[in-house]
Formats: sequence, C-alpha cells, structure tokens
Amino acid sequence: MPKLRVHNLSVSLDGYVAGPSQGPDHPLGIDGEELHTWLFDTDYGRLLLGHAPTGERGTDQDHAEAGDANIGATIMGRNMFGPARGDWQDLSWPGWWGPNPPFHHDVFVLTHYPRPDLIVEGGTVFHFTDDPLGIVLKHALVAAGGRDVRLGGGASAVRQYLLAGLVDEMHLAQVPILLDGGERLYDGLGRLPGYECSRMESSPAVTHLTFSKIVR
Amino acid sequence: MPKLRVHNLSVSLDGYVAGPSQGPDHPLGIDGEELHTWLFDTDYGRLLLGHAPTGERGTDQDHAEAGDANIGATIMGRNMFGPARGDWQDLSWPGWWGPNPPFHHDVFVLTHYPRPDLIVEGGTVFHFTDDPLGIVLKHALVAAGGRDVRLGGGASAVRQYLLAGLVDEMHLAQVPILLDGGERLYDGLGRLPGYECSRMESSPAVTHLTFSKIVR
Repeated sequence: MPKLRVHNLSVSLDGYVAGPSQGPDHPLGIDGEELHTWLFDTDYGRLLLGHAPTGERGTDQDHAEAGDANIGATIMGRNMFGPARGDWQDLSWPGWWGPNPPFHHDVFVLTHYPRPDLIVEGGTVFHFTDDPLGIVLKHALVAAGGRDVRLGGGASAVRQYLLAGLVDEMHLAQVPILLDGGERLYDGLGRLPGYECSRMESSPAVTHLTFSKIVR
Repeated sequence: MPKLRVHNLSVSLDGYVAGPSQGPDHPLGIDGEELHTWLFDTDYGRLLLGHAPTGERGTDQDHAEAGDANIGATIMGRNMFGPARGDWQDLSWPGWWGPNPPFHHDVFVLTHYPRPDLIVEGGTVFHFTDDPLGIVLKHALVAAGGRDVRLGGGASAVRQYLLAGLVDEMHLAQVPILLDGGERLYDGLGRLPGYECSRMESSPAVTHLTFSKIVR
C-alpha cells in the first residue's frame, strides 16, 4: 500500500519548525536556517546548493536521501510554496526553489485561494487546492502512480494530516537548539494518539526520530 | 573547580518535565511517570526500587550513574521535595523518597517559606532556604567539600540557575512522547545564550543531550 510520509522535518528542541517572524525577509523565520544546517552539510544538501559532494556518508546523509526514495508526488502547505498570503498576485512565481524546483512530479499546495496549475521546468506541476485533506491525498496517490506521497510541511499541514490519522510515517530531525518562537509543531496534537516513536538515532548534529502508526 | 550539574532531567518531546495536574495524586503530573520509565529500566533504577539488577549496561545506565558521580550536595526546587504549597504543615514528612532518601548529603530546598533543617536517616539533611540562588550555590559548594553540586530540578529551579549562568553542565534525557501539558522546561530561556549542546546520543528509549557552557 502506498504511504503518506513526512521526511527531514527539522524541529528545534523547543518544538519549532521555523523561527519567529516568518515572511519574505525570513522565509524560515529568524534564525530558522539553523534548523537546516545539518541537511546542507550532507552531500544531499551540498548537491542541492550546487556544491561538490564530499563522498562522506552517515545517518544524516541516509535520512536526507530516504526522503526522496520511492516518492511520486508531494503535498505541502501554502507557506512552504511561498511567502504570499491571501489572494495570489504573481501567478508566474515558481516557488522558493527558483525556475527548476527539485520535485519533478506533481505537487499539491494546500490553500484556501485556489488558482490554475503552475507548470514549471523539470516536470514539476503545482496544483493549488482547497479540497479536504483526504481528497488531496487521493489525488496525490493517483498522481504518484503506485509510489508513496511525501508530505513536505509545514507544521500546520503535518498537524492536520496527523490528526486525521492519514500520515503513515513521520521522520523528524531534531536540532539541539532553542528558537524561542515561531511555528510550533506539537501544539494541538494532544499526545499524538495512534503513533509511536519506532526509531531514534543521533548524529553529532541532530537526532533522527521516526514515528509510525501503531498497529493493533 | 567544582561544578553545578544537572543530570537525568527527563523531558518529553514537547518540552515537559512533568505532566499536567501535578499534585499529591500525581506527583509527576498525569502520565508524567512515562518520563522516567527509561531510568527505572536501568540497573540504577532497579536498585532504587529494590529490584534485582540485570547486569546489563549501556548508555542509559552510564548516564543514570553519572548523575551521582562526585556529587557532594544537592539543590532542588520545593516541588521536588514534596506536594505541599504555602506554609509548611507537617514538618516531619521526609520528602517523596520516604524515611531514607537516596542523597546521603546536604540538600538545599529552594522555598519562599523557610523552616528549620530536617535531619533524616542515612546522612541526608534538608535545608530550606529563600536565599538568592548564588548564595544557595555557595552554601551547597561549601557543604560539598570540593565535590560538585547537583541541581535536581524541577523546571523552575533549573531555568533560574540557567538564566543566572550558574549551571556548568546540563544533561537532559529526552523521551520521544508528547505529554501535551504540564511544566515546560524551555519557556523563558530565550535561545539559551551561553550554552551549547556538546554531546548527543540515543538509546532505543531516550536521547541524551548534554549542554555545556560555551568557552570563549
């Protein structure tokens, strides 16, 4: 059965997936980029940024790569796509990633402001939808053609899918820093019923926590 | 130089060191005992509870033991000592641990309601003090006679000593569960200036995070 998977969702020790004052000037919130240093220090991250790989492996690189394995479509919240709020103004803007986003498949952007699909370079197609979560997942599963769907974030989208019990697997990368503000992942999840931590391992930079659905 | 050290401070993924509704019926808050399962599963914890040791070692046992090594005195907040609030009523009550507490040295209990010392079995003497934090530390260092002082908790006492820059080392045991309420460790610490995570390792049960003062 294809799955809905969260990968490499970086979270601070105090539970924030982005720093305070998120917006055009601070896409990740103030100091939020510190959440992603571990990823950009891997060869996976170096290649994303156009740097030469080092050839080093390790648990961080393994987890970074695992996020793309067998993924056929992506779902994300609107703020993951861009800084615009409310009615869309610039319909040609291709998202934070520039003209050739690293997805190369269908991406479903959750928004209360639907707009036409955006087709960009490299096979990425952004669909903007205000359908219910389960319907969006269904469309994404069809688009994925038998492969899994990745839930890219942010916190709100992940929370909503967790509360609906639709997430099959969630990998968090916990960075041992405090951000003291921003978007908190855990608020409103209660005790996260139906899920348990199935795997936990630390690198020098980050602790990888994998949550799975409890099988009864 | 003798140090002020925090050890085995168990914290949930959402940052709570005790569950909600802490009080006589729930000394650790509702579901708060889940924070300490990892400790009671070690031989250190088994011996505390009067169970036979298993002979197994590992990072959890190492960290459990390290909390007692070279410790000559303890400081703790009032709620760590007992459930009473306001004026003390029963002056003979020996604390949560029963008649022979596991300290066997001087314990300084931070309280706004001073009372006479309480001398119990096994060499433990409880001092109840509303002196400023630095003065309490000074008394504890003298009592420790050259050894280190352990800061036992709870969250409020640890926060106050961290904000004063008086904690030299802090070991957190992060349990991968959500408690969704209770006493949150990180609130009010800002970005924890002056400290950095110097060591991180995971067992199957818990992630051990050690924070040290940044040396400039």
